[in-house]
Amino acid sequence: MVKVGILGGGQLGRMLLQAAANYPVETHVLENDDHCPAAHLCQYFTRGDIRNFDAVYNFGKNLDAVTIEIENVNVDALEKLEQEGVTIFPKTAVLRIINNKILQKQFYATNAIPTAAFTVLQSKSEISTWANLLPGVQKLATGGYDGRGVQIIESLQMENLGFDEPSVLEKKIDIKKEISQIVAVGQNGKTVLYPPVEMMFNRRLNLLDFQLCPAPVTKEVLWKVEAIALSVVRHLQSPGLFAVELFVDQRDDVFVNEIAPRVHNSGHHTIEANYSSQFDMLWRIILNYPLGNPSCILPSAMVNLVGSEDQTGDVAYIGLEDVLTIDNAFVHLYGKLQTKPGRKMGHVTILSADKQDLIHKANKIKQTLSVVAAPQG
Amino acid sequence: MVKVGILGGGQLGRMLLQAAANYPVETHVLENDDHCPAAHLCQYFTRGDIRNFDAVYNFGKNLDAVTIEIENVNVDALEKLEQEGVTIFPKTAVLRIINNKILQKQFYATNAIPTAAFTVLQSKSEISTWANLLPGVQKLATGGYDGRGVQIIESLQMENLGFDEPSVLEKKIDIKKEISQIVAVGQNGKTVLYPPVEMMFNRRLNLLDFQLCPAPVTKEVLWKVEAIALSVVRHLQSPGLFAVELFVDQRDDVFVNEIAPRVHNSGHHTIEANYSSQFDMLWRIILNYPLGNPSCILPSAMVNLVGSEDQTGDVAYIGLEDVLTIDNAFVHLYGKLQTKPGRKMGHVTILSADKQDLIHKANKIKQTLSVVAAPQG
Repeated sequence: MVKVGILGGGQLGRMLLQAAANYPVETHVLENDDHCPAAHLCQYFTRGDIRNFDAVYNFGKNLDAVTIEIENVNVDALEKLEQEGVTIFPKTAVLRIINNKILQKQFYATNAIPTAAFTVLQSKSEISTWANLLPGVQKLATGGYDGRGVQIIESLQMENLGFDEPSVLEKKIDIKKEISQIVAVGQNGKTVLYPPVEMMFNRRLNLLDFQLCPAPVTKEVLWKVEAIALSVVRHLQSPGLFAVELFVDQRDDVFVNEIAPRVHNSGHHTIEANYSSQFDMLWRIILNYPLGNPSCILPSAMVNLVGSEDQTGDVAYIGLEDVLTIDNAFVHLYGKLQTKPGRKMGHVTILSADKQDLIHKANKIKQTLSVVAAPQG
Repeated sequence: MVKVGILGGGQLGRMLLQAAANYPVETHVLENDDHCPAAHLCQYFTRGDIRNFDAVYNFGKNLDAVTIEIENVNVDALEKLEQEGVTIFPKTAVLRIINNKILQKQFYATNAIPTAAFTVLQSKSEISTWANLLPGVQKLATGGYDGRGVQIIESLQMENLGFDEPSVLEKKIDIKKEISQIVAVGQNGKTVLYPPVEMMFNRRLNLLDFQLCPAPVTKEVLWKVEAIALSVVRHLQSPGLFAVELFVDQRDDVFVNEIAPRVHNSGHHTIEANYSSQFDMLWRIILNYPLGNPSCILPSAMVNLVGSEDQTGDVAYIGLEDVLTIDNAFVHLYGKLQTKPGRKMGHVTILSADKQDLIHKANKIKQTLSVVAAPQG
């Protein structure tokens, strides 16, 4: 049986392993926490730090392939494994680009992929020379994740608050929509595109809040989204599954925001809503099976369940029973024992041919179900 | 977290555990084989014999609930656990009835549930007095499974070939259709019915060969099927998931053939084809959540993948790539390392609103995909 390792044992790993059980594959997980969501669903769990060279190298050296559920891993170790013949999904060259915001923006520029106008900064003192990019978004080259290492620079008056490290400063786009386009790339280079998703974010926590699929966009926007996403993966030159996050501005121009070279929160709905889910698709890529069918079975909405503000401790779900009675809703709780503000604890997907039904139920779920800390005792 | 044990680690356990990962539940499996399909998907695997009293009792005594994926388990141990407060799904009283064909038939008779005319035999010499039940089917009271312990007695000339043990002899029904009706019963007694399935069997191996859902039956037959299935579960008086297998005869009369008080082969399609799969539904029952929605998302067909004749050894799948390219087919391989004739190695579900598409693809899959022993070397 093919031996495949996953770096990271969170909910993405958990759902990957649920899908893995449809195929003959020996699964391995590396994660620091014995009780992480994916720990018990693999054949072999290894406790270790995915950012540590030795941990990653030793984990991977007897495997056929390694993939990731988070980018923040030891890429040096993966590169050594790749040189020694372990197939890495995505290729480490892709991780080098993705993990450095400067390289990522330069990749777009070099390959004529539309993205927000930007410059590279070494220190905050340089901001003053880029007034034309303000209001802008400053992003640390490395170390940012899920909203950390990103800030808005509204005007030159804020220069002093800027990050004083290598970073990119990009011009703020007047966003009409945020779209995620998931693309699968097989080992033979064949690609398939999922129907794109429109994402609504909780700006403060920078967490995906609610999404709709297929995204309600015009044909012209859809064509731009697809063309850009295909250009991205053609230039990345790696098999794997890629979530390309894009902005549509008020003039219907489309820009890449960033790329996740892995299964992604914006693809959770594909478990029930698409013939081949993003998790199924990644296994097909890794196992060198034909790519699956990304088409929708039905339109869908997806709601993330995140830990409530000011609630830290043993998790409890309020309103769960009510949500479990919704006819066309699929509840996924990740089995995390502890909640904290903003932590992703689960999601709910709704299927319906009726868009109003999707939006109505997504809102109902957001109002009904909350993730809190259980009372002590 | 609620602690739930599963007796048996085959494909039904595997699919139960895939579904369990949507909910916060601590899962335990008891099975004799460390490499069984379900072994790696639970939190705690125990190697042991599900037919052994001590193995089952020790496995269950610290759990909140125990369920089964096969009936052939140590019911005495489950009864002791039940007395000590562990909830058993289904109740052990149900297992006592199901596991003895004499009690099962008497249960139907006592509760006016339509079933083939029958008598109870203690030895084969009694067959001669029951010529009115011939041609008939003789079934051993205990020990039969998957076609073993069942034989046709065509005429009095065959009396000598009859089983010489406690058994039932039932009159052969002139079968037009075989139907499976899955019913879910919640802890509060609430029931929901899945759309019934029509099953086509491979008579020789007594394995489910191909099924269609919803079963193409008249409204009148559907009403009889539903009424009988509801009567069955009302009289069993136990929460759980039940597959009621029925015969429809040439006059459109409906008879119970047998009951599986657990997730069942005839419900595999519900993973993709129904809002709440049979596996999801059983977790809802065990966790005392509201029952799910059993409705079809789309009509479906399901094909079992069984080991080819004369093929024993390390498994290989011929034609898998072709089947993986079918747009609306979902492949499930159970990860069994060894194939043998008739062994259930996987299944494929097809979704389509077009019945001809379902039948065409089910046949194509049966012709394309075969499970063989890999060449040595």
